Amino acid sequence: MEPNRVNPGKVIITAASTGGFHGKKANPNLPEQPHEIIQSFHDCFNAGAVVAHIHVRDTRGVATSDVDVYGEVIEGVMARCPGMITQVGNGVGVRCEGSAVMPFTLDERMNLLNITPVPDQLTINVGTFHSEYLNHEFLWPNPRRWNSEFVQGCKERGIGNELEVYDLSHIHNALELMDRGVLEAPLHFSIVLGASGGAPATVQSLMAMVQAVPEGSSWQAVILGRPQPALTGVVLGLGGNVRVGLEDTVCYAGSELALSNVQLVERAVRIARELGREIAHVDEARTLLGLPARPQQPPS
Amino acid sequence: MEPNRVNPGKVIITAASTGGFHGKKANPNLPEQPHEIIQSFHDCFNAGAVVAHIHVRDTRGVATSDVDVYGEVIEGVMARCPGMITQVGNGVGVRCEGSAVMPFTLDERMNLLNITPVPDQLTINVGTFHSEYLNHEFLWPNPRRWNSEFVQGCKERGIGNELEVYDLSHIHNALELMDRGVLEAPLHFSIVLGASGGAPATVQSLMAMVQAVPEGSSWQAVILGRPQPALTGVVLGLGGNVRVGLEDTVCYAGSELALSNVQLVERAVRIARELGREIAHVDEARTLLGLPARPQQPPS
Amino acid sequence: MEPNRVNPGKVIITAASTGGFHGKKANPNLPEQPHEIIQSFHDCFNAGAVVAHIHVRDTRGVATSDVDVYGEVIEGVMARCPGMITQVGNGVGVRCEGSAVMPFTLDERMNLLNITPVPDQLTINVGTFHSEYLNHEFLWPNPRRWNSEFVQGCKERGIGNELEVYDLSHIHNALELMDRGVLEAPLHFSIVLGASGGAPATVQSLMAMVQAVPEGSSWQAVILGRPQPALTGVVLGLGGNVRVGLEDTVCYAGSELALSNVQLVERAVRIARELGREIAHVDEARTLLGLPARPQQPPS
Amino acid sequence: MEPNRVNPGKVIITAASTGGFHGKKANPNLPEQPHEIIQSFHDCFNAGAVVAHIHVRDTRGVATSDVDVYGEVIEGVMARCPGMITQVGNGVGVRCEGSAVMPFTLDERMNLLNITPVPDQLTINVGTFHSEYLNHEFLWPNPRRWNSEFVQGCKERGIGNELEVYDLSHIHNALELMDRGVLEAPLHFSIVLGASGGAPATVQSLMAMVQAVPEGSSWQAVILGRPQPALTGVVLGLGGNVRVGLEDTVCYAGSELALSNVQLVERAVRIARELGREIAHVDEARTLLGLPARPQQPPS
Repeated sequence: MEPNRVNPGKVIITAASTGGFHGKKANPNLPEQPHEIIQSFHDCFNAGAVVAHIHVRDTRGVATSDVDVYGEVIEGVMARCPGMITQVGNGVGVRCEGSAVMPFTLDERMNLLNITPVPDQLTINVGTFHSEYLNHEFLWPNPRRWNSEFVQGCKERGIGNELEVYDLSHIHNALELMDRGVLEAPLHFSIVLGASGGAPATVQSLMAMVQAVPEGSSWQAVILGRPQPALTGVVLGLGGNVRVGLEDTVCYAGSELALSNVQLVERAVRIARELGREIAHVDEARTLLGLPARPQQPPS
Repeated sequence: MEPNRVNPGKVIITAASTGGFHGKKANPNLPEQPHEIIQSFHDCFNAGAVVAHIHVRDTRGVATSDVDVYGEVIEGVMARCPGMITQVGNGVGVRCEGSAVMPFTLDERMNLLNITPVPDQLTINVGTFHSEYLNHEFLWPNPRRWNSEFVQGCKERGIGNELEVYDLSHIHNALELMDRGVLEAPLHFSIVLGASGGAPATVQSLMAMVQAVPEGSSWQAVILGRPQPALTGVVLGLGGNVRVGLEDTVCYAGSELALSNVQLVERAVRIARELGREIAHVDEARTLLGLPARPQQPPS
Repeated sequence: MEPNRVNPGKVIITAASTGGFHGKKANPNLPEQPHEIIQSFHDCFNAGAVVAHIHVRDTRGVATSDVDVYGEVIEGVMARCPGMITQVGNGVGVRCEGSAVMPFTLDERMNLLNITPVPDQLTINVGTFHSEYLNHEFLWPNPRRWNSEFVQGCKERGIGNELEVYDLSHIHNALELMDRGVLEAPLHFSIVLGASGGAPATVQSLMAMVQAVPEGSSWQAVILGRPQPALTGVVLGLGGNVRVGLEDTVCYAGSELALSNVQLVERAVRIARELGREIAHVDEARTLLGLPARPQQPPS
Repeated sequence: MEPNRVNPGKVIITAASTGGFHGKKANPNLPEQPHEIIQSFHDCFNAGAVVAHIHVRDTRGVATSDVDVYGEVIEGVMARCPGMITQVGNGVGVRCEGSAVMPFTLDERMNLLNITPVPDQLTINVGTFHSEYLNHEFLWPNPRRWNSEFVQGCKERGIGNELEVYDLSHIHNALELMDRGVLEAPLHFSIVLGASGGAPATVQSLMAMVQAVPEGSSWQAVILGRPQPALTGVVLGLGGNVRVGLEDTVCYAGSELALSNVQLVERAVRIARELGREIAHVDEARTLLGLPARPQQPPS
């Protein structure tokens, strides 16, 4: 896909409030408990974010795959942020207990299909790699067979898919899943750069991956760490969508901690507007991402 | 040159207030007379621009190569904007008289060497092409021999050179001039995109040209027309310097006319800071561009 | 246009036997007189070349725009190489008389429309630049207006156009001519690299230009000078067509003079086949280039 | 690293005779038994290959990690191909028993350190991914910690490392291992394209990966499957080294089975020479790859 540069259209902003790795130790402003997460998404929604990328924590702040906690957050987002797209990351994160760093099992991750109310989108991570967190190396398995089964479960429940791709091979894997009838066009890619074990957060990686995305797809960039502000400028100039939030970077600039998720959303909104791009509203985003119109609110 | 993405450093902002083509008919806020131009540069200087890219007009607003008018503007800028780098574009522009569109002759352009006080920099346009303005096609000659003579004149007067390159071949021409001993490293490139007859204002052109710039050079982008805001985001994210001003685009966004040069400078400053880049002060810019320290102000 | 890499299809080989610059002094094997040129094209045709790119010389070996000489060569090629595509370069070359190096005038070049029999294709050079030959710098003017008039003349005579592009801006100029209704899709590009004043003969230039060519076009590469063999391998691997001949390089490898045009064609054929590409026959090439079927041979 | 295009230098040709996946069923000319493998390397050596990339099979033709079989092949190569660089792939392959497809364990792979005589180089695969073979999906684990331990073992035994990288992230992983002191510059990269689960065999992947290779490294391309001939032309034109052999493709062109490894080496040699590149002899290759001079042959 050629980067769109003449009429980049509206930008879809996703807030990634929490993640499944670092927590309040890394930045005390990172929301961990459901009410914090819901409040943070509400703030982000008011500032222009239309997709809530959701990870949850247990009462101690440890990443969890507990579907009840996910359900609580989704309900809260649906109630307070009318139409905001709920998106659950299927990597879940890692459980840090004492000095142990344990990823979630494939069965625990498959169980995300049982979240109720169902989210609008579930993430597929379209490739396997080894990653490091706190000097612990761990495998992050995302086999095709498991992904295919997961996508099948999503289809049965009417849940859409966001495709997180960490390298060129992952885009190719997604195309193979489309060839096999597992995924259907248009695809919605999240190009993740700067993850441990993924492609680095450079302009070269970004350009190579954008060019590998097939025509007709949508794409956003998820930039982890310090290159986040500069590369977000590039992404917005290229016509991509953006995801920001404390999941992706705990700093606002340099080593200065971000005050909140909404601070990062507000910056993305400002940059997008400075570059001449308007912010997509929820209804526009639902159309662009091929999702059903927002649910009718229950009568009060 | 690989785009610098980790530590892009400070950004040098150039204001191109006036140009030698369109005038108040295209945007009534475009400064034409010396006092207007000086005031506009002063406003831009206060907002963060450290280089004044200068074109001048006669009393009717028609582009002129009159060295006295240039001198008047340079004096004004030196007096009111301490240390601001003065840079005169050697293309001068086109004389529009009635329905005629006449470029300036090579002799008129060579005479820019006689401007006093001398500017800090004179532009070299490192390639020849046909261009169109108001449906008039004209040749814009920039032969090597003439450029070599012009650079020689600059050296004799202690004037630095900014190299405007409108395509890949122009960068190559500059390298040939360096091989012949005419130009000396480090070179300072202005990658101009979107000019009639030059490379188009696309990300692909930009990336190809940045990669062709030799290591150790500085580069800025000059984006003409509507892609200006979006591509400026890309350029700032890549670590480049930027030029903005009514010479390059009369619109602020879409078809909305810009209110002033400083409005465009202020936006560039805001974007740069949002992306994590600080604005170079005049002394820093002089060092980065290999220019002598700012002249001592005469005693008042 | 993405380089085609999976099924690159057949390759169209063009022979550029003579050119309008260097002659027998540079390589005594370069054909200058009509009978030499015709013989050389005949040899190349037998070896797989299906397009004859034609420049001619006067009896002294000096480049000429004499339409009678062109006509003589075209007749000879038509007679001896059934169906071979005749293509006349509209730059003609430079007249070297004593120490003078004089390009041909626009009027002399326009007069190529009067060649009889008409060639299958006339070249358009889609951009103006200064070039050097034997330390003489000269302007090579290719204004849009003139090109438009020339194309109009080609249309009236049923002559197709090959578009020689020496830089990114030239491709953009061609697209503008298409927007204005002068040229019609599909376009047939010759990406010329390594000319004095044009983009350099590097992989980076090549990739940038191939990507700028619009989908649905055909493209060949014309590589001048020593990088010719290596870049021809890249071009053939990318799925492009190739032009070879003593016009483009007088050496076979390094500084070793080529023995003949056909030696260069034979190498291109060998490389293409090694890379898995078959050679297009004249009828296939005529279809691929949108030219009419080969003329019926007159009864003998 | 910019692709080298002006003076690409000599090309190092590696023969990958056998591999650890398909066997005589896919192509009966694939050597499986030690004497077949040694003979095949000998033929390739005579044709210009200077590196023997070694995988071995048991007596049934099933991939094996048996160090004695490796030792037998290495001894044979050393005896018959004076100075040829022996390189053992540490992925080993997959054991196909009945309908089962089983990769080798990390312990079995670590045991390759105990091959005697020691090979000149052992491969590091610098990233983990899921792959498919015969509709079986399997994990191919290459954790950093394990790779670090393996490299340490290589250092202790004076064995060099070849770095197989299947995607952008793998190059980044290698740089991280260099930052941690595990690997030392200059690095020697094998860019593998077209593997199931790796980056696809396209020019775009190739260019992105070549640009990501750090200056001062060497690189070769390993292209799997049908794009092999065309992309080999590109690689040789870019200045890269090449690996060919029945491990990488069982076909010579299209679906035509290759007759032997040497047939593929001979083609690579022919293409390289056509493109103006000479073939590195063993002593030159040892210098280029930072390996000790070839061992003195024992007195007979």
